[in-house]
Amino acid sequence: MKGIRQLADYLEISIGTVSRALNGKPDVNEETRRRVLEAAEKLGYVANQSGRSLRQGTTNVIGLMTGSDAQTVENSDNFFLGVTDGLQSVFSGHNLDLIVLPCPGEEDPDEYLKRMVARRMVDAMIISATRRIDKRVDFLKQTRLPFVALGRTASSDTHAWIDLDFEGVAKNAVDRLAAAGHRSIAVAVPDSDINLGYVFLEGYRRALEDNGIAYDSSLVIRAKSSEQGGYHAASEWLQMRPRPTAIVLIYELMAVGLYRRLAEVGLKPGRDLAVIGFRDGPRGQFLEPRLTSFRMSLHDLGVTVAQTLLSTMPAYAPFYPDQARHCVWPMLLVAGESDPAPAP
Amino acid sequence: MKGIRQLADYLEISIGTVSRALNGKPDVNEETRRRVLEAAEKLGYVANQSGRSLRQGTTNVIGLMTGSDAQTVENSDNFFLGVTDGLQSVFSGHNLDLIVLPCPGEEDPDEYLKRMVARRMVDAMIISATRRIDKRVDFLKQTRLPFVALGRTASSDTHAWIDLDFEGVAKNAVDRLAAAGHRSIAVAVPDSDINLGYVFLEGYRRALEDNGIAYDSSLVIRAKSSEQGGYHAASEWLQMRPRPTAIVLIYELMAVGLYRRLAEVGLKPGRDLAVIGFRDGPRGQFLEPRLTSFRMSLHDLGVTVAQTLLSTMPAYAPFYPDQARHCVWPMLLVAGESDPAPAP
Repeated sequence: MKGIRQLADYLEISIGTVSRALNGKPDVNEETRRRVLEAAEKLGYVANQSGRSLRQGTTNVIGLMTGSDAQTVENSDNFFLGVTDGLQSVFSGHNLDLIVLPCPGEEDPDEYLKRMVARRMVDAMIISATRRIDKRVDFLKQTRLPFVALGRTASSDTHAWIDLDFEGVAKNAVDRLAAAGHRSIAVAVPDSDINLGYVFLEGYRRALEDNGIAYDSSLVIRAKSSEQGGYHAASEWLQMRPRPTAIVLIYELMAVGLYRRLAEVGLKPGRDLAVIGFRDGPRGQFLEPRLTSFRMSLHDLGVTVAQTLLSTMPAYAPFYPDQARHCVWPMLLVAGESDPAPAP
Repeated sequence: MKGIRQLADYLEISIGTVSRALNGKPDVNEETRRRVLEAAEKLGYVANQSGRSLRQGTTNVIGLMTGSDAQTVENSDNFFLGVTDGLQSVFSGHNLDLIVLPCPGEEDPDEYLKRMVARRMVDAMIISATRRIDKRVDFLKQTRLPFVALGRTASSDTHAWIDLDFEGVAKNAVDRLAAAGHRSIAVAVPDSDINLGYVFLEGYRRALEDNGIAYDSSLVIRAKSSEQGGYHAASEWLQMRPRPTAIVLIYELMAVGLYRRLAEVGLKPGRDLAVIGFRDGPRGQFLEPRLTSFRMSLHDLGVTVAQTLLSTMPAYAPFYPDQARHCVWPMLLVAGESDPAPAP
């Protein structure tokens, strides 16, 4: 792939003449223009946008850091694809391109982010899957690179962030189950240090308290956020004595594995165990009986993440004068057939 | 975010001294080093890797172009995440970083690719979801940018590509069903101009011929490559008279929607309709009865895609002297319980 300089060298004419010929300026004779266009095709000329960007000091590219480790792969649902769609709908209005930076599983996320920032590819960053203590936030604050975090962290609250309403999900699920008469409600939470697990568990404890139910740590099942994790959680539940009458899940795909495990032993969600799932995604919609879960628009979430980020960037802030820096994203309970009252 | 020049300007000392201080060279006095490190922290200094790359004429970044349109979002499975993992395992050995370039749904893929190449962010490209006639291949050939296509196209065969063995899948599925006595075998193919649909249909026709079964175009169901598409395909099948006794699916998640639709009318895969699915992914593993489908390693596919690409790049070709430029990736049939013999 060649740029304008190589083209000029090849033709032995000035860069200025090549530029004028390529841009269709009238002060270039036809023979020269023809030679330039032929050479451009022959050499594989592509206009260099990065040169333009370096002069302006901007790249017009926004980075979204995700993971590509084995657990993320197992877990994969359409969450990030849906959010990407919303992000791009905002960015494209400002001629900004989104690139996805998948941190390899074997690499330290903090070091990966540093390397990506040092590459000067992006004008701003979106980080996700925030941990309880997340050094990436401190690093980005220190660099002054604009960024937004999809997910809270306990280690900072002054930066821009958006997070799903995990407390609200826990509260609504427990309230609903308690109102139906359940007193022994298990919960499946991630087995990692991802911050959402802490937030969810805290919401679950508070909701139990609100309903006068004592917290029992043996009802907290640690599991991977995946179908396999749901299968595992159901196996754990099967071994409990007495078995809780209800369970609340923290990840969309867990329900699929849990349904499968129950089916293997002839048990049925809704009849033998009240189940409330997490996100009302395309996977859950096909479960039978229909899963009680929480609805949200990934596209709208992406739009808000993009607007929050742009509101922190001087060049774009005037377009988003009233944008909040922090947002807890609501999720709406959609009743299915998986959580009726407990057996008398 | 500041670079070395801004740091030197701020401190009113030379760039060379700042550089030596940052790099821990011994010929800088302690007071100067302290001032440089303090300023670096205060201003948010990050070493500029892109400057280094510009001098070398390389970025050490490989781009993977994917889609983020609504259909891709619906379709999402862990295919690309799995491949990404394999790609990175090879690239990291050469200190190459992978970035994902998600083409927005409303944008023309050919124009999007041109813009991304003009950004000079990447040393090479991986394109995917190739169409029957794919102008991206012609464009990349013209630019001389090294690339590999994940998917064949009818419009070029001289570039490097890797594709799944869609003919083999069609052949094995039809042979297996014919051997079990099925003579009326439907097939679900994509409703778009993606090339794999043509390849799969051609393989299906040839396999029918091999088994002495006449091709009947009314048994070809056009459907989206998604759960919704599988639901739709099952609805189409329900309306056929006479109903085919078997169906072969072209996309992993279709099976989930098809199972659901059959369950709604009290029918069961394996008993009322022989079903052979496509990829043996995590979704299909949880279906009951277990789906007959095809196994492959996404990680290994990613490894081969990466090695094929690197073998076309002069700087890395010596590491991969025997790499083929074209590869049809085999898939292994794994028998489940979804396709027994037809009812007598």
